[in-house]
Amino acid sequence: MATTERTVTDALEAAKAASIELGRASTEVKNATLGRLAVLLRERSGDVLEANAADLADDRAQGLTQALIDRLTLTPEGVEAMAEGVEVVASLDDPVGDELERGVLSSGIEMRKVCVPLGVVAVIYEARPNVTIDCAALCLKSGNAIVLRGSSYAERSNGALAALVREALTDSGLPEGCVELLSGDREELAALATADGLVDLVIPRGGGGLKAALKEVATVPVMYAAAGVCHVYVHGDADLGMAARIAINAKVQRPGVCNAAETLLVDAAVADEFLPQVSRELAGASVDLVGDERARAAAGGVEMDEATNVDWDTEYHDLKLSVAVVDGVDEAIEHINAHGTGHSDAIVTASDEAADAFTTGVDSACVYVNASTRFTDGFEFGMGAEIGNSTQKLHARGPIGMRELTTYKYVMRGNGQIRG
Amino acid sequence: MATTERTVTDALEAAKAASIELGRASTEVKNATLGRLAVLLRERSGDVLEANAADLADDRAQGLTQALIDRLTLTPEGVEAMAEGVEVVASLDDPVGDELERGVLSSGIEMRKVCVPLGVVAVIYEARPNVTIDCAALCLKSGNAIVLRGSSYAERSNGALAALVREALTDSGLPEGCVELLSGDREELAALATADGLVDLVIPRGGGGLKAALKEVATVPVMYAAAGVCHVYVHGDADLGMAARIAINAKVQRPGVCNAAETLLVDAAVADEFLPQVSRELAGASVDLVGDERARAAAGGVEMDEATNVDWDTEYHDLKLSVAVVDGVDEAIEHINAHGTGHSDAIVTASDEAADAFTTGVDSACVYVNASTRFTDGFEFGMGAEIGNSTQKLHARGPIGMRELTTYKYVMRGNGQIRG
Repeated sequence: MATTERTVTDALEAAKAASIELGRASTEVKNATLGRLAVLLRERSGDVLEANAADLADDRAQGLTQALIDRLTLTPEGVEAMAEGVEVVASLDDPVGDELERGVLSSGIEMRKVCVPLGVVAVIYEARPNVTIDCAALCLKSGNAIVLRGSSYAERSNGALAALVREALTDSGLPEGCVELLSGDREELAALATADGLVDLVIPRGGGGLKAALKEVATVPVMYAAAGVCHVYVHGDADLGMAARIAINAKVQRPGVCNAAETLLVDAAVADEFLPQVSRELAGASVDLVGDERARAAAGGVEMDEATNVDWDTEYHDLKLSVAVVDGVDEAIEHINAHGTGHSDAIVTASDEAADAFTTGVDSACVYVNASTRFTDGFEFGMGAEIGNSTQKLHARGPIGMRELTTYKYVMRGNGQIRG
Repeated sequence: MATTERTVTDALEAAKAASIELGRASTEVKNATLGRLAVLLRERSGDVLEANAADLADDRAQGLTQALIDRLTLTPEGVEAMAEGVEVVASLDDPVGDELERGVLSSGIEMRKVCVPLGVVAVIYEARPNVTIDCAALCLKSGNAIVLRGSSYAERSNGALAALVREALTDSGLPEGCVELLSGDREELAALATADGLVDLVIPRGGGGLKAALKEVATVPVMYAAAGVCHVYVHGDADLGMAARIAINAKVQRPGVCNAAETLLVDAAVADEFLPQVSRELAGASVDLVGDERARAAAGGVEMDEATNVDWDTEYHDLKLSVAVVDGVDEAIEHINAHGTGHSDAIVTASDEAADAFTTGVDSACVYVNASTRFTDGFEFGMGAEIGNSTQKLHARGPIGMRELTTYKYVMRGNGQIRG
């Protein structure tokens, strides 16, 4: 299990070999593996919690912030939630083998474009041990071997969880190499990121430091998720009560996640009516407000410091919100395309015309009309879970679920055709 | 048109701005632009041929090989073929706006996953001037602004062709910036490859030198096409007459292209029967043969040098073929996955079981049963033309047509939903 006596290359070669077998496994076998994993998670919940307690008691964990300790800590309910998540993934459609297109070439060759697994998917993540199970379930069901590189703080927890996945694989007759766990050290990260031909995709879940380190060395394909600088735009025709509820929810409900709003844009026509009340409510929810000149003037005396140029491009990940007044939907779109990260942006409006202009003009993965940006999430989107969230345009955009972990091949059947 | 007085950034900013307008253009307007372009190509064929003659008469062209001069040379028939190609693209379905998925989240938010253009696509290519028109047509129809960086040898030809595209755009009320032509110098290439936020995709069409240069500097997304080390595998149950026709076609019909075969694999069971005749025919077609020990022994006296380890991994791009004898379909699959580049590989067999094992096991973009590898081509696949061919697994695999030049966004409509 541990890579103490194996090199990263050993682990990756095992994963590659296993991926070929897993890629051919039937939906029934994959679902049986997931069903068994859910059973094991419940039966061995005690082992997992014991490993987690050892991680928390480790000297290394003593320097962690309370937020990180919260993320690292597993509870019986958390393990049960993992088991339920695995069952949800088992219940979803298997994308592998789906026929995406079919046709007959002019030469008479029959063409089928068929969905196939990527092969070996590596996930690099931080403290949360549940990621081990969520990502393993999505990869296994979509026919991909997974290489997990978690935080060293969660080493024992991740090891206990990965051991259950491997036991479930063995019980179903699938190779253990379908799940490989690497240690948290930097050399292993570099070896992983340069394993051309062995790793088909790396998904980094983590902060800017990890992404920068990867960009420096990676030669294998990486799907990067940019930070989420998300916007709520209150159009002149908005229901202002709805606008306030959405703005507050998008900022306050969980400020540390990537789909939380960082900027509120308000049409000049409604700024004087809208901003005083919503600013009071935001300030009452401990949100630190910064604004442009017009927003500050319209805030009705609520404290709002001057926003700097940096503010419009900043993902606060915190109870802080920048506010600007704009002259209509076109200016809002321009602001969002200039300062956003292409993650999730919302308009609140009763005007279909403004909604259409916004959803067409804003170049983001997810564009919302009259709803909070907080819904961008694989679970909410019906993908069971998500292995990450992409703000790039190639391959996958938005939540990365099973479908996004596949590619396709063209299967061509002829009867002797040659090209003239 | 020329970038002599404009910087690359000026050109890219113009393309980005134009891409927003083009992305919203209706299918009718895009088709009218393409129809007008076809008319202009026919009306101004003389101007294009004159510019091409000037490129050919230029001092720079004097050092070119005959093969490159052939690629650079335009004829009246060649210009007519470009016009017809543009009309074919106009006749194809517009992918933009296609609804890829639709659903309702548990929160009641309506979700639509909609096909949208990538934005700005840059194509870097070598001598062939027809690429200017082929790629411009595919990009315009799929709603993408295109930035063209051709060879300096074809500067006047490409300029004349791009001028026609810009005239067609203006005549349809679309911005000229939908097509930008850069000069061939290295600084412009580096500026293009690092224009984050302005360029959504770079497609290099060209040799290893160009790709290596790009890998060194590129920070924008690049879709690389690896070389095509393609295989024809003759299974023990093959119709050997068909196998010989396919092997010869795949190698000889046009050896300088990426979908030509470089390696012939033959089952041991039929090697003695198959190899003497096909080797004679290949040698008769001036193909230089190299083989492993068993292939040389079975070649019936036809000259076949010993293949080195390098041969199995080499794209000859020439009348040269490596030949190996294998023990069945599993060994063939293993050889192809170890030495191929994931481009196009064929099995010749009468056995459905062997065909299924091969198409499932070979990890390539296009897997053929009883047909030549030479059919991997956007035009043959019904895509009108192709802007390149991808051997990577992410985003697009195989021929890159209009669909592959798009991404998607999630358009979410609610009535005030917030997350609890």
